[in-house]
Amino acid sequence: MSAEEREAARGMMRKGELGRSPAEQRAEFDELFANLPLGDDVTLSERTLGGVPALDVRVAGADQDGVILYLHGGAYVIGSARTGANLAAPLSRRSGVPAVSLEYRLAPEHPFPAGVHDALAAYRELAGQNVVIAGDSAGGGLALALLLAARAEGLPQPAGAVLFSPWTDLTLSGASIDARDGYDPLFSRPNMAESAELYLGGADPRNELASPLFADLTGLPPLLVQVGTAEVLLDDSLRLVARAAEQDVDVSLDVVAGAPHVYQYFAGLLPEADEALDHAATFLQNRLRDKSVGGVA
Amino acid sequence: MSAEEREAARGMMRKGELGRSPAEQRAEFDELFANLPLGDDVTLSERTLGGVPALDVRVAGADQDGVILYLHGGAYVIGSARTGANLAAPLSRRSGVPAVSLEYRLAPEHPFPAGVHDALAAYRELAGQNVVIAGDSAGGGLALALLLAARAEGLPQPAGAVLFSPWTDLTLSGASIDARDGYDPLFSRPNMAESAELYLGGADPRNELASPLFADLTGLPPLLVQVGTAEVLLDDSLRLVARAAEQDVDVSLDVVAGAPHVYQYFAGLLPEADEALDHAATFLQNRLRDKSVGGVA
Repeated sequence: MSAEEREAARGMMRKGELGRSPAEQRAEFDELFANLPLGDDVTLSERTLGGVPALDVRVAGADQDGVILYLHGGAYVIGSARTGANLAAPLSRRSGVPAVSLEYRLAPEHPFPAGVHDALAAYRELAGQNVVIAGDSAGGGLALALLLAARAEGLPQPAGAVLFSPWTDLTLSGASIDARDGYDPLFSRPNMAESAELYLGGADPRNELASPLFADLTGLPPLLVQVGTAEVLLDDSLRLVARAAEQDVDVSLDVVAGAPHVYQYFAGLLPEADEALDHAATFLQNRLRDKSVGGVA
Repeated sequence: MSAEEREAARGMMRKGELGRSPAEQRAEFDELFANLPLGDDVTLSERTLGGVPALDVRVAGADQDGVILYLHGGAYVIGSARTGANLAAPLSRRSGVPAVSLEYRLAPEHPFPAGVHDALAAYRELAGQNVVIAGDSAGGGLALALLLAARAEGLPQPAGAVLFSPWTDLTLSGASIDARDGYDPLFSRPNMAESAELYLGGADPRNELASPLFADLTGLPPLLVQVGTAEVLLDDSLRLVARAAEQDVDVSLDVVAGAPHVYQYFAGLLPEADEALDHAATFLQNRLRDKSVGGVA
């Protein structure tokens, strides 16, 4: 991305203040993201999946076999199925695969592992279908936790997972947490730590369903990870990818220099965001095709 | 890849014996790879680039603007422009971009940095065009060395580079050199060390034009790295990608579990090889388009 594009993107963001209540954080996030236009070709409708509320994200013409289960971002404290639809819809449009965006329970009212339980319940209802998982930020971490929980339960794995700037380490041990502090327009150690504390509710941050970076990843399906370098979470992606490779998991990575957290939000403005979504859509199509050809693993 | 596919691929390979002369190694390599069919749509013709012999690899219909400069593998000791055409041709076919495969000088007759000088001379002749670089194994390391040498000379960078299982560290310091020894059907520390010694001819293996893993990568163009996990060179890719990301270079990575060194050779047999070449072709097209839109960087 050009220096001008980077500065324009940065100008649209600012670091969250500390100590705001979850209600204040949610109101601000929803004001920014819960009413973004999705396109005239998109219809949202409420449903439940395994008893968990969700939004069906129907894009006209997206009628390929399979389903994308989308897990929204928001540090496990904010965001909603509707904000997740901002990325589920373009993924669905570009891949042709229908999507559903999950309203998993949020902290601090419902701390860890409530979100994991909700994701697993939803996945269990979908598991007879050809499923791929996608998620951003905390939703990317939750997607990994879901894969681990499904493995522990003996459920079949989904065909693959796409993770946009996943938060994989709630211990905040990545070198980039401090090294990228001045560069990341959104996050810093104090606001990440505040969110982690709200989510964990006293649980061990090294618990593998909270920090899947520390898990044995063996047997996970193909992963595509996308991250920018203007992120304190850069190392959450780099370390995850290296670990997955070392544990013989198929894994792909796209790193965009200078891009901020979940830069896919800038599709239409930033060519790298469009290319990332195109790549993610191709990846999801290929994984669903593999599974369809190979049968249920 | 399935266990059956992996075993079939492994059955086609064996580790090279130690102590064979370069002539013996070249004869065996050429017998295996210098006469592989390229397809009826491919025409090879001899040319020179900056005084260095090369093969124009013309695929019918591949007439997009731009050129792929291909640098073949073979541990800097074996291989040729013709063996490089085995990968240059499918890259050209899938991207629509013409390719040229370079006959850079080989060790031990022409040790380091002769190959780098040849690549730079060829690149200098192409530098007025919209160029991308691709290479496998030692050719991937040489591609990186070329980018560094071009930067040092003040030449414009190419639009991007694709590196298949690049050899980036002639000191053999990656943990995978030993950790993957029993898993890699082709290489082990002793045969890598033998080739490194032939190439270096007494030069420091930490020289950044021999081991670009140790270079400052700042300012390099977007890189796409592809590697299998059945490779002692796995860490040469993982460490390169992490370093590029940390130095704000755009970088993408595809890791295929169980795949051997330069698994792209198995296109048509292994779906992952076809997907890798498709991804590489899309990447090259996108980079040439960026450069074409953005003007000369």
